[in-house]
Order: sequence, then C-alpha cells, then structure tokens
Amino acid sequence: MEINAQIICIGNEIMLGHIANTNASFISNKLASIGIKTAKHIDIPDNPGVIISSIRKALSESEIVAISGGLGPTVDDITLECIGKALDKKLIFNKKIAGRIKTHFKRRNLKMPANNLRQALIPEGAIPIVNNIGTAPGLIIPVSRTFKNHGKILIAFPGVPFELYPMLEKTALTYLKKIFSPGQIIKSRVIKITGLAESRVNEIIEDILKISGNVQMGIYPYPEEIHVKITVTEKNEIAADLIINKIREKIESRLKDYIFGYDNEKLEEIVGKMLLRSKKTLAIAESCTGGLLANRITDVPGSSNYFKLGLVVYSNESKNKLLNIPMEIIKKYGAVSKETAVLMAKNVRTLASADYGIGISGILGPGGATNKKPAGLVYIALSTKAKTICKELHFVGTRNLIKYKSTQAALNMFRAG
Amino acid sequence: MEINAQIICIGNEIMLGHIANTNASFISNKLASIGIKTAKHIDIPDNPGVIISSIRKALSESEIVAISGGLGPTVDDITLECIGKALDKKLIFNKKIAGRIKTHFKRRNLKMPANNLRQALIPEGAIPIVNNIGTAPGLIIPVSRTFKNHGKILIAFPGVPFELYPMLEKTALTYLKKIFSPGQIIKSRVIKITGLAESRVNEIIEDILKISGNVQMGIYPYPEEIHVKITVTEKNEIAADLIINKIREKIESRLKDYIFGYDNEKLEEIVGKMLLRSKKTLAIAESCTGGLLANRITDVPGSSNYFKLGLVVYSNESKNKLLNIPMEIIKKYGAVSKETAVLMAKNVRTLASADYGIGISGILGPGGATNKKPAGLVYIALSTKAKTICKELHFVGTRNLIKYKSTQAALNMFRAG
Repeated sequence: MEINAQIICIGNEIMLGHIANTNASFISNKLASIGIKTAKHIDIPDNPGVIISSIRKALSESEIVAISGGLGPTVDDITLECIGKALDKKLIFNKKIAGRIKTHFKRRNLKMPANNLRQALIPEGAIPIVNNIGTAPGLIIPVSRTFKNHGKILIAFPGVPFELYPMLEKTALTYLKKIFSPGQIIKSRVIKITGLAESRVNEIIEDILKISGNVQMGIYPYPEEIHVKITVTEKNEIAADLIINKIREKIESRLKDYIFGYDNEKLEEIVGKMLLRSKKTLAIAESCTGGLLANRITDVPGSSNYFKLGLVVYSNESKNKLLNIPMEIIKKYGAVSKETAVLMAKNVRTLASADYGIGISGILGPGGATNKKPAGLVYIALSTKAKTICKELHFVGTRNLIKYKSTQAALNMFRAG
Repeated sequence: MEINAQIICIGNEIMLGHIANTNASFISNKLASIGIKTAKHIDIPDNPGVIISSIRKALSESEIVAISGGLGPTVDDITLECIGKALDKKLIFNKKIAGRIKTHFKRRNLKMPANNLRQALIPEGAIPIVNNIGTAPGLIIPVSRTFKNHGKILIAFPGVPFELYPMLEKTALTYLKKIFSPGQIIKSRVIKITGLAESRVNEIIEDILKISGNVQMGIYPYPEEIHVKITVTEKNEIAADLIINKIREKIESRLKDYIFGYDNEKLEEIVGKMLLRSKKTLAIAESCTGGLLANRITDVPGSSNYFKLGLVVYSNESKNKLLNIPMEIIKKYGAVSKETAVLMAKNVRTLASADYGIGISGILGPGGATNKKPAGLVYIALSTKAKTICKELHFVGTRNLIKYKSTQAALNMFRAG
C-alpha cells in the first residue's frame, strides 16, 4: 500500500492572501524525507462547517492528514472543537498540557489569561506533541476506530511556523516513521554554490540536470547563491545514497571551487568552521550592511569562540573616531571607496587584535547614489597580517537585497581565501 | 449572489515541498481587492486524473477557478490538455500565440525547440492572456455553456510567479471586474501591538474580536508582537473605512500604550520616525543580539540620519577596550548583568556623542547558560543624558528567536520611552 498524506491549513489570513502558506510545503518536504508522498494541500478559512467536512474528506482519501492553524487560545481558534466533531470524539481536559501552559506564563512572570486553558481541551485519545516555544500543544490522533481503514492518523500543529517546525521534526516524524515504515524512501541532497550566475551553472551541468528516471534534478536561485537539488526515490537509504553520490561527484568535479556547502549548511557556518579549525579570530567593520554580517556570523552557535568584534560605523565620524580612518582619506576618496574599505578591514583587525579583518562599505540607495557611484556599488576588503585585498562589486536589487548580497560576497571572499 | 473563487496550483515540486506555493496567496489577495473571496486553495501533483477531477469539482462549487502551473513547453506540462478534457473542449492551434512564441525566441537569437508550439494548442473558446516575460500564455475560459450556472470562469496562469503577477493584474482582474462587477470591496487594517501576550490582548478585546457580519476579526501572534486585523466587506472604500475606523478607535482606547503601528509598519521604522522627528541620534552596543538590532535599524532608508554607531562587543575584552567597562564589573556581576548592560548603554552613548544609547547583554544558550543565569535571560538598558534604565527579561525559544525577541523588546523600550 502506498501511504499518502493530505495537508489542511486553516486560516482566514491565508484565504485573504495576507500571508503565504509555507507550512504545507515544509510538512510535505519532511514527509517526503521518510517516504510519504503528499497527495493534496488544502487551504480553508476559519469556518467550522468547512473545517469539519474537509477533515472527514481528507481522512477518507489519505492515510495521514496533517492540519495546521487554529490551535491558539483565542475565540477564533476552533480547530480542536472541529476535530472533535469531525471524529465524533469528546474534548477532554488534559492536566499535563494545562500544567505546561501555566509554567509557560510563570517562567515569564506573566499572569495567565483564563482563555489559555482552552488549549488543554483535547479530543479523547489524542497524544499531545510538546510545544517548547508557544502554549498551543500539537496532537497526534489515531483514528482507526472511527474510520474503516486501519492506522489512519490525524496530526494537528499550531499555525506559527517556528512552533510547528520542531514539533514536526522531533515528534510527529518519529511517530509516523514507526507506524508506517513505507518500503521506499525519497532522499534529497542539495549542493550549494556561490560566485556563479544561475545560467552559467545551468550551462556547465546541463546534461546532469537532464537525468531522470527515479532521479529528479532541480536548480534553484537565491541571492548570490544557487542550489542544485538531487532527489532520488529508492527502496532504502543505501541505494539512494549510491545514486546521489555518483551524481554529486560529477557535479563537484565541474563546479569544485564554487561549491561552499551541502543541504542545510549556511555560508556563515562554513566560515565559522574554518575559523574554529584554524583557531583564528575575526573582527569586522560594516558600513552599508549595517550589522547584517555580524548578525549572520553570530547566528552560529559557538561563534563567540572566533568572533571578537563587530563595528557598525555608519557615520564618517565613527569611521574616523573608532577606526582611525583619516578624514582626508574619506574626503578624498569617499566613505564608499577602496581606500576606506581597506582601512576599515585593516584597522578593525588591529583594534580587536584579531587574525582577520573584514571591511564593507557601499551604497544602498536611493540616498547617496551618484552617477559615478551608483546604488549597489560595494567595496569589500579582507585583511590579514600579511596582506589586505579589496573587491569592487555591483549589486542590483532593493536595499535589503543589496545588504544581503554584500554579506554573501564577504563571507564567500573569506571562504575562497 | 456572493461570488467566490478557488485556486488550484499544479506541480510535483509543490507536493514534494521543494518550493512553497506563493501564487495562491498572491491570487487570493488580488481577488480580495476587487471583492472576490477565496473559498479554497488546492495544491495537486502533475497527475491528469487528479487535475481533471479537481477542475470539475472546483467549478461545481465556485464561480471562479484559477489554475497555476503546467503550461510550460515540456512533456510534463499537461494543464491545457486536462482543461480540455475537464470542460469537454477541443484543443485548437492558435496562430497568434504561436507567432508570439516564435518572436520570443527570435528576439533572443535562440532556436525555438519544436516542443514550444504545444503552448499554442488551447481549448476552444479560450481567450489568451499575453505573457510578456515567458512563452506560456495564460487563458480565460468562460464555461457557462458547459455548466448550468451562468458566468463561471476558469483562468489558467503559468506557475512562474513573476510571469503570473502581471498577467493577473493587467488582464485577468480587469476581465473579472467587468464580468462580475461585484459592487463590493474587501478592505483590511492591521493594528500592531507589542509588550503583551496574545492571550492578554484577546482578553482585553474579546468582545470586539467577536464582531461579525460583514466584519471579520483576526488575531495573529508573531515573536513579541501581536497583530489584530480588521477586515470589512463593503460596497466601497468610504463605507469600509467608516466601519474600520470605529473598530480601530475602540481597540486603541483599550490597548493604547501597546499599539506601536499599523499595516506594514515595522517597529524599527517607528523608532526611526521618532528619532527623525525629535532630531535625536542613537548608538547601540550589542552582545547577545550580535548585530541584529543594528541591522534592523539600518534596514530603514534614511537611518544614517540618526544612527551613529553600532558595536557588537561579543567578547569581554572588547567590552572593556571599546566601551571602557571595568574588568572588575564584568568579573563581579558577569558580562550578562544589569551592571554591564547599563554601562554598555551609557558608554556607547558618550563614545558616539549620541542622544540615546542602548545596551543589550544576554544568554542565548546552550553555551554559557547556568542555573542562576538560564538561556533566554537578557538585560536591556536605555540611556539618555538624564537617566539610564534597565530591564531584565526572560525569553523562550531558539538562538535566533531569542536574538529577535531581544531586539523587539529593545525597540519597544525605546518607543515606550
């Protein structure tokens, strides 16, 4: 029997197009990783009749039905009641969940509103999924007794993505894997590339991208980053890995220097690992990126081991005062210039007694842009005791995009040495 | 008659969770702007049987069915054939579309693959929607003769978002407006709140959240931020605004101090506006937030007018060296302490000669956490010439979430004065 799933996302805000539904694709992706295909996504409004009939219909068609949304403490959170009605199960007050909710408020020194205890009223027979971030518990509900087909499972998650993610990954997937153990798996590997345009990557590996059969190839562009995805359907991990590795090695042989990582690895993590391994330290001075580079570097756990100092020297005075960059240099060449970026990198390195210094200065626009120095012009300098190099780059995009692309380029400059 | 729509998005890549479906929310949002509600989103794989039955079912339930995906030139693009079968219409070769496709390749000096002419085979009676970016045309198909209800419309778009957007906005919406002239609009207003838990907000405005009829109320939690959304269906903007404003004023009178903005406004923009208006300047010293606060502040265009300096003093040495915080203070009270945060705020303010100084120090965990100082403990200090205040906060969540929540609290501390 092929196991398949349906995903129901509940919320008026989705139906009005106020938010895009990212939960459905996230859940599908994780289900695929354990060999469960998704047959349908359905988004519906906060309407009890629609919710109840959608749950019933999905359970009549698929073995697994995942629901997200409507588990909050407020009056428009009606998913628990609707599940109860759809499955003809009573709602029962769960003391453990109530205890967790009370603790959640206590820890923050907040008074718990009475409403929150609605979240502890769960359908009979439901197994709670612990939510370590918010108050809404998730639920796993075996529905074999209600429906004729055995082993059907209804799973409910809160709609907030960062609450849903760990609840799905830690609890629900483990449960499903145990129950269904489907005889085939879908495995994916992502190869992450930077420093090349998508069309160029496409050209270099065009023949590989055309591989088909039980392999699906994909190429996805991100700002200053290209992902090549290999997806294989096979009977087990070993068989899937064999195929994936063969294709991966082919791609690596052609794109070697441009590959910075795999799967969930981020450029800032790769840079962090390099610094940890070599026991070197880093200090940075940012102007146009405004702290984004420091923020990305410090997103990595353990970064305090190698990240010594970040300066966001947004004004000329601060460039002069903190980094000792002579006002004459700034006046003669501009705050956005090779000369300034080089001194930012050099001087922040010596100021922090670090091994590496990075300096970034650029124009985000629309303010500050001129014909000679248009928006998107960015200078990035990388300094060591031995030498300081500087790159002039031109980016296109919004303010935020230019900030992000600049940090991508800076991290890649460090990585590529 | 209330007009409603369903949106069907087709593609294996959506079902595998390789891409999130943003088309559905985009189409819903645009339909809402001309008064058409979306009753359901459905995502399905590239499977002819499923596509045909989904189209038929959606058309039996709703007046408008919009489809995206599967209009490309390749063999797995089967939407046109499926539409033909679902509506029992022949596919007819459209010379105009074929001409446009040929021109598309000619202009780019590319040889046209023969496959591309499949895109010119469209169901009888379909009105093409010109695609100025790619080769796949969109289609508007009146299906009144096939179905009993009059005036039902099927619209097909390519799946590529930036091809779909202009085709929907320029052609399809104009057509729908003319056909259905719904004589009603849907308007929304978001009230943004911070500093209160969702359940507390819910308690305070519970009666308002229950307002129904042509009004839809919603409450949505974000990290350290709550959105209350008022959505009104009315005959025109003026009528909608009247209702929205009445509800808005009611909410404002109860939540006054906790409301920081409306609609798309961000906390960092509100803080920026306050600084611009008062002609004051800001400098910040961050430890645990690692540059995120500076990054958010500099996301706002024009922030160089008031943001003077950001320091990411990740190490004790840098706190001592750059901010003159005595090593004895750090040793006695800890880098994460009220005392250190206060000195960070004070000293970065004087260092940058700014009017305001903010200092943030906290423990993200897992490293560095102790029983006395658990992960999530954060001190935020705000300093002016006259005084310096400091708050002790306890946050729950992942590393990134604690970083973000800390910046929310810091910005709100500034806003609330």
